[in-house]
Amino acid sequence: MTVTDDLDLNLLLADTEEEILRVVANRDASTVGVYEMVRYHLGLDGSAGPRGKRMRPLLGLLAYASIAGDHQASLPGAAAVELGHNFSLVHDDIEDGDIERRHRPTLWAVHGIPQAINTGDLIFSLSRVALHRLSDLGFSDTKVLRLMRLYDETCVMLCEGQYIDIATSAQGEPMTVDLYFDMIGRKTAALISASIEAGALLATDDEDVIGHYRRFGWSLGLAFQLNDDLLGIWGVELQTGKVPTDIVRHKQTLPVLYAFEHATPADHARLTAIYKTDEPTDAEVAEVVAILERAGAADFTRSEAQRHRDQCLVELDGLSVIGPKAHEKLTGIIRSVISA
Amino acid sequence: MTVTDDLDLNLLLADTEEEILRVVANRDASTVGVYEMVRYHLGLDGSAGPRGKRMRPLLGLLAYASIAGDHQASLPGAAAVELGHNFSLVHDDIEDGDIERRHRPTLWAVHGIPQAINTGDLIFSLSRVALHRLSDLGFSDTKVLRLMRLYDETCVMLCEGQYIDIATSAQGEPMTVDLYFDMIGRKTAALISASIEAGALLATDDEDVIGHYRRFGWSLGLAFQLNDDLLGIWGVELQTGKVPTDIVRHKQTLPVLYAFEHATPADHARLTAIYKTDEPTDAEVAEVVAILERAGAADFTRSEAQRHRDQCLVELDGLSVIGPKAHEKLTGIIRSVISA
Repeated sequence: MTVTDDLDLNLLLADTEEEILRVVANRDASTVGVYEMVRYHLGLDGSAGPRGKRMRPLLGLLAYASIAGDHQASLPGAAAVELGHNFSLVHDDIEDGDIERRHRPTLWAVHGIPQAINTGDLIFSLSRVALHRLSDLGFSDTKVLRLMRLYDETCVMLCEGQYIDIATSAQGEPMTVDLYFDMIGRKTAALISASIEAGALLATDDEDVIGHYRRFGWSLGLAFQLNDDLLGIWGVELQTGKVPTDIVRHKQTLPVLYAFEHATPADHARLTAIYKTDEPTDAEVAEVVAILERAGAADFTRSEAQRHRDQCLVELDGLSVIGPKAHEKLTGIIRSVISA
Repeated sequence: MTVTDDLDLNLLLADTEEEILRVVANRDASTVGVYEMVRYHLGLDGSAGPRGKRMRPLLGLLAYASIAGDHQASLPGAAAVELGHNFSLVHDDIEDGDIERRHRPTLWAVHGIPQAINTGDLIFSLSRVALHRLSDLGFSDTKVLRLMRLYDETCVMLCEGQYIDIATSAQGEPMTVDLYFDMIGRKTAALISASIEAGALLATDDEDVIGHYRRFGWSLGLAFQLNDDLLGIWGVELQTGKVPTDIVRHKQTLPVLYAFEHATPADHARLTAIYKTDEPTDAEVAEVVAILERAGAADFTRSEAQRHRDQCLVELDGLSVIGPKAHEKLTGIIRSVISA
């Protein structure tokens, strides 16, 4: 790979995948099978299918390059966050009982729950191994250790968020809007924020700058999740590659939770009743959408997404270290986050 | 806790549990439930039941204290390996379908598979968080980072070993004795060896000394596992708190695998037939035991256990840094490993 200063996203993507492949390569004859499973889940098994957006590593590389001018040295960090994200996906798929991801059977659907749990654990372990290459690339021990502490605390938050998700899904009652924001902060914003903060702290010692990137990442993560919530109900197949199924699947996303708190008593009762129906009909799904819209849930969710998106732009504009090309690229990504 | 130079194992145990409790304490109101699950699994929820032997942390503390004279500064490492071991137990219990551990229901049996997978992930994450306190205690960044690299590579090995275990259990054919040694090296010896090596490398920069401890730990891990294999077939309830059930459960441990390779054709056929029976009778279990003994499996396993145990003693005797009290304590532990 050549050094780049034009921040070509396809090049960043190719470099990230090469870095990941280095970490998930076969190690010896008796364990080839588990590394094959790792690469299958990552979409790095040579199949032509879609692989995931690699949003987190790309953001980390861009954050680093926006200060340092080039992305190369931050590739181990990018590989680590993508592996960390994917370990959680492997386990989430088991926890949610999902049998398909990116148009392919999930790992547990192919190899069973025991191997999938263990392969997720291996991906988690390998995500740490990835980070150690930062030392080989010349980063100081202090820097690498600080990055690891950030990553370790982020993993704790991921699990805490997932705990809230599983616990509230198992309850009969919808969670509060406040708890929902608490949950998505841990489940989604934390890792996106950590990716971006990691890129920044590898590039600079300026704590003020690092803080801007961290807050930028946190707001971006929330905006991203809320946009996903909108797409899950009002999205069209073209945008997401899937029909909006959040209501059919009884997912507790912000629009639904907001409606539970703000609908009229009659709408609240219907919403409760339909959310207890195992397989709602198309008419019932349409009725829920109408209830959400009457309660102002779509407007609220969109305005919250926009508010966090705008906060990203504020944080970005507060940074003097970013070159014009990187600023343009990051602004473009931020604007593209809200598609719904 | 007071400083100790007499290496009282009960004191080491109490200090280790205090260190672990610091890491697994509640963090905030919305996540109390998951930390309660963590403490339940660890036996640190205030219940009076048995908690696990804490063998790994104790060995690490002893290794450190045998050079440094005191164990205090190595407590974060001890907490990390115990948490790492326990994350794997939480996941193993799901993978093996075990509903009981230490006379209590396993985590997944109480809270379901989704929460148990996620709680295991949290314990894994917390094991890394534990290590960062080494920095607060004054260890250099270089030292802490080296310890983390050792720990990360060890976790990879644990998962590789577990992969081999699950993959071979799913097959109809018994694995080879060679593959079995490969597997238990990764599954059992790696973490025990890493615990001891970690204790040593926190206490000294002498690579020769660190190497002795590492090899001592590896041999001890193998001896420990082989002793466990013996107990699983020839143990008595008094020693293990459980009746020997390895044959009933069709576990592929060394004695059985050795018999598959060395039994007479007639015995081999009977062994194969009984190992395919869902619920072998007491008479069939007794028949298997007789077949193993005729094939020399008990003698072979015991002599292998002794060979590795003796290797521990050789490594230990090669060390000039160990004080007499620590030497005595470690020798006692090594000798006690073979009880079968």
